[in-house]
Amino acid sequence: MTVVIVGGVAGGASCAARLRRLDETAEIIMIDREPYVSYATCGLPYFISEEITDRSKLTLQTPQSFKSRFNIDVRVKEEVTKIDRTAKTVTVKKLEGGEEYTINYDKLVLSPGAKPIRPPLPGIENDRIFTLRGIPDADKIKAFIAEKKPKKAVVIGAGFIGLEVAEGLHRIGIEVVVIEKLDHVLGPFDFDMACDLHHHIRSKNVSLKLNTGVTGFVTKPSGIGIDIGTEVIDADFVLLSVGVRPESILAKEAGVALNPFGRIAVNENLRTDDEHIYAIGDAIEITDFVAKDKVWIPLAGPANRQGRIVADNLAGQKTHYSGAIGSSIVRVFDMTAGCVGLNERRCQALKLNYEKVFTYTAAHAGYFPGSTMMSVKLLFEKGTGTIYGAQIVGFEGIDKRLDVLATAIHGKMKVTDLTELELTYAPPFGSAKDVVNMVGYVAENVLQGKVEQFFWHDVKCLEEKKEFIIDVRTKAEYDNGHLATSVHLPLDSLRTTINEKPDTLPKDRVIYVHCQSGLRSYIACRMLTQKGYKCKNLAGGWRLLNSVTKEVQSGPSHQLPCGAKPLN
Amino acid sequence: MTVVIVGGVAGGASCAARLRRLDETAEIIMIDREPYVSYATCGLPYFISEEITDRSKLTLQTPQSFKSRFNIDVRVKEEVTKIDRTAKTVTVKKLEGGEEYTINYDKLVLSPGAKPIRPPLPGIENDRIFTLRGIPDADKIKAFIAEKKPKKAVVIGAGFIGLEVAEGLHRIGIEVVVIEKLDHVLGPFDFDMACDLHHHIRSKNVSLKLNTGVTGFVTKPSGIGIDIGTEVIDADFVLLSVGVRPESILAKEAGVALNPFGRIAVNENLRTDDEHIYAIGDAIEITDFVAKDKVWIPLAGPANRQGRIVADNLAGQKTHYSGAIGSSIVRVFDMTAGCVGLNERRCQALKLNYEKVFTYTAAHAGYFPGSTMMSVKLLFEKGTGTIYGAQIVGFEGIDKRLDVLATAIHGKMKVTDLTELELTYAPPFGSAKDVVNMVGYVAENVLQGKVEQFFWHDVKCLEEKKEFIIDVRTKAEYDNGHLATSVHLPLDSLRTTINEKPDTLPKDRVIYVHCQSGLRSYIACRMLTQKGYKCKNLAGGWRLLNSVTKEVQSGPSHQLPCGAKPLN
Repeated sequence: MTVVIVGGVAGGASCAARLRRLDETAEIIMIDREPYVSYATCGLPYFISEEITDRSKLTLQTPQSFKSRFNIDVRVKEEVTKIDRTAKTVTVKKLEGGEEYTINYDKLVLSPGAKPIRPPLPGIENDRIFTLRGIPDADKIKAFIAEKKPKKAVVIGAGFIGLEVAEGLHRIGIEVVVIEKLDHVLGPFDFDMACDLHHHIRSKNVSLKLNTGVTGFVTKPSGIGIDIGTEVIDADFVLLSVGVRPESILAKEAGVALNPFGRIAVNENLRTDDEHIYAIGDAIEITDFVAKDKVWIPLAGPANRQGRIVADNLAGQKTHYSGAIGSSIVRVFDMTAGCVGLNERRCQALKLNYEKVFTYTAAHAGYFPGSTMMSVKLLFEKGTGTIYGAQIVGFEGIDKRLDVLATAIHGKMKVTDLTELELTYAPPFGSAKDVVNMVGYVAENVLQGKVEQFFWHDVKCLEEKKEFIIDVRTKAEYDNGHLATSVHLPLDSLRTTINEKPDTLPKDRVIYVHCQSGLRSYIACRMLTQKGYKCKNLAGGWRLLNSVTKEVQSGPSHQLPCGAKPLN
Repeated sequence: MTVVIVGGVAGGASCAARLRRLDETAEIIMIDREPYVSYATCGLPYFISEEITDRSKLTLQTPQSFKSRFNIDVRVKEEVTKIDRTAKTVTVKKLEGGEEYTINYDKLVLSPGAKPIRPPLPGIENDRIFTLRGIPDADKIKAFIAEKKPKKAVVIGAGFIGLEVAEGLHRIGIEVVVIEKLDHVLGPFDFDMACDLHHHIRSKNVSLKLNTGVTGFVTKPSGIGIDIGTEVIDADFVLLSVGVRPESILAKEAGVALNPFGRIAVNENLRTDDEHIYAIGDAIEITDFVAKDKVWIPLAGPANRQGRIVADNLAGQKTHYSGAIGSSIVRVFDMTAGCVGLNERRCQALKLNYEKVFTYTAAHAGYFPGSTMMSVKLLFEKGTGTIYGAQIVGFEGIDKRLDVLATAIHGKMKVTDLTELELTYAPPFGSAKDVVNMVGYVAENVLQGKVEQFFWHDVKCLEEKKEFIIDVRTKAEYDNGHLATSVHLPLDSLRTTINEKPDTLPKDRVIYVHCQSGLRSYIACRMLTQKGYKCKNLAGGWRLLNSVTKEVQSGPSHQLPCGAKPLN
């Protein structure tokens, strides 16, 4: 059996190595346009930031190591230009010299990846506009920095790579402006969870321009101008990071089925509509593990897994791919942010009957030094409590909680299961009730109707309608900032107030209660509900409201106008 | 309804607060012998080590805060001395003054905890022998250290608390000797996984005496002598940490059913055999979530969860407790070690048909600075792959992988599920194939018969029997230490050897293959197996063998003699 693999990074390389372990006799040929295979794409921003100083560490394997260890014929700087599905051949062009030749294949694996989008804007061909995908891109950017000693960069696109590069450039002393078309950084996040990151990025003296499109680029005497409509920003160079597009042209020209967005369509064995052609990685559409619809998740983890699964199938073991949940994480200066599963926008688009809760909890025991707080948003199905997804922003232990939630989603667990998880606890690592237990408790209370919630996006209307809002925080917290229309009734005196001055609180209206994070106001709500009051708790409390409101002041309001259909 | 809660730490305090949130009208009385409630027991070693400097942070709640926030009547320095189950009263004794009174209860919750064992050895009453359970114990130790400025301490018992205190004393400049009766530190671990910790502890100039019992104590002019039979060790003081015993005397005297070990027996609602009495925390026996037998897991996490569950039941919500898996973690100097579920000794005692695998994997991407290695042992059921338990030892990210495995165990997942987990990946946090995926892959390969294993405890016999062992590491690794009887055949030239000099390897014998960690030797085994050789892979490789062998040199051998029944 001759297996030709097109593309030698992540998925392709994983597929080749696994296939050899399963099948000593197959002829395996792996072809890549670039001079490198199996390199660490995800490390490139940290190579630019000089956190990774040893360039050779980025190339995990070399063509030589693939040959000696796995007997894989790796051909770099060669490009597959055509697939003849009838003859079962590929045409390969040597990029040095231009010579062409064909290879007969029994099975073909497409792992072509994706390439950075360069939108057709005026001035886009300026040689001070860089994109970052492979090692040669990183080399070019580093050479430019070394030679020109730039003082200012504009990063266009505040996705994962954009923010990593922005942080990296800032780290090596370059002034950075980040421009993002959306109202928040990190597309897979919801606006409300991204706001903490906005404040943090700005606290580092990085200029973050949200809701901002770029209309073109102009050449300047010793730099480049980035036209954002209202002004032209001068900079020494631009890192363009507005997304990637699947490299599916080869498949398309061969008549392999693509979806309308140009992504290669595959079945559960990751086979295309041609029984001899498999496809993996950033070029394919896959199944969303949670929603079961078709999605595009161009990430390294899924690509590696897919490579292994295709190897199994090529070796006769019918392994299925169950889809992905898009688990992602990124370091953003001193903070860390990540997400798993569906976000709220996806829940809305899918018309899911979802519920959301927010917590703000210590990463490890508060009495142990260095404890920081993390903000969690958990989405789940009303009624059943099935977990849809989560987003977490904080400083320490973010990856741990996301991985626990990713595992819970994989295990089709419910929010009530989160309350039962017995996670490791010692003061340096966590709390006896871990962050994940806590968010499970909050969700369980909502699920079981122990408390009703209202949200940050409801507050403006409630204030307009002069609804009855009580703030149960301490006097110091209240004095430090509060809603104009709220009544201050500290939690620890609330019971006395109810018992001794019951008329302070209306029995005929809903009492909207908030504290700092939502925990004390929950206790207040339980007290009020049992005393016969109607009560709602502000999810995420003043902290989330304040984080979002600070952002809303510099952009469009996400507050729902009175009478609007609620978000969930 | 009047609910009396005996014991105001962890479980008792959780129960009281949750019950109030569910039931505003219940009269809740919580009684504790000590002057503090709801304090951070797990923080005490770090208070001694001066990592925690603010003593007030250890008391999470005070009697006053319980009263004002939760309307809970907390009575400290009072002891429940008797339960009259017929009259449904408890007798309470004020420890200051000695006055006694009774309280009528509708429901009684026993959360008495456990107390340190003081074995009846000669000289045990010496006032230089300390135990550590509550804040007063920590205060006493700190006062002793401040006053006597001790130079040398002996810690007896190398369990979690013993090691934490040993580290803490070492941190404040006290010479430490640790004495342990077993052949390894941390009882819940297996010997093979504890050896890395032994080497690490000794590298810190802490004297670790395993397989060592204490026969008595003698008073010295300005210190204490610890008699271990072969010698008397002089020290300034002793921290005795040889385990705890449930405080179940009150329940016993009231005729509440105990198990033969003196632990209070409860049903799935955590109710005792008296329908009005519940029990939680370190004094009860619970169900092992994995093995389903009755066990004793005196840990803070389960205690808190049990408190909440009893509150639910008291409030009429029939919540069940599904048992515990004993998730534990401990920082041991620069290392971290933890475990979830069953260990190998438990698997053997339960006569489970188990399999074990070992991995040695980077905590985060090797190309990103600061990556460290962690050692994982995973136990699972032969045939089905159901996860039984895991132990992990390393430096960074240990808690994360244990928590993922704890979640997988809770979700009744199999090792094949571990391969599919989509965990968050960015270079500072993990790898595209995470540690948990890797151990899943290794287990899956074993489960599916892709490779057969042999173990460190088989090596001595194999050498004696002059079996054919090949070492596929590089020359540099081989030269740095190798088995006397092994043949050196580096992996990257193995294929050439097989093809060009097939007689180098015997076809009629099992070829025992090892590398450093087990990964390269797996690749070698796949190659050999497909070429028609019989082959076995050393689980955990030279690294684990070497770690264990170094330990065995200073104690009894765990190597199985030839002809012995294999461990699994």
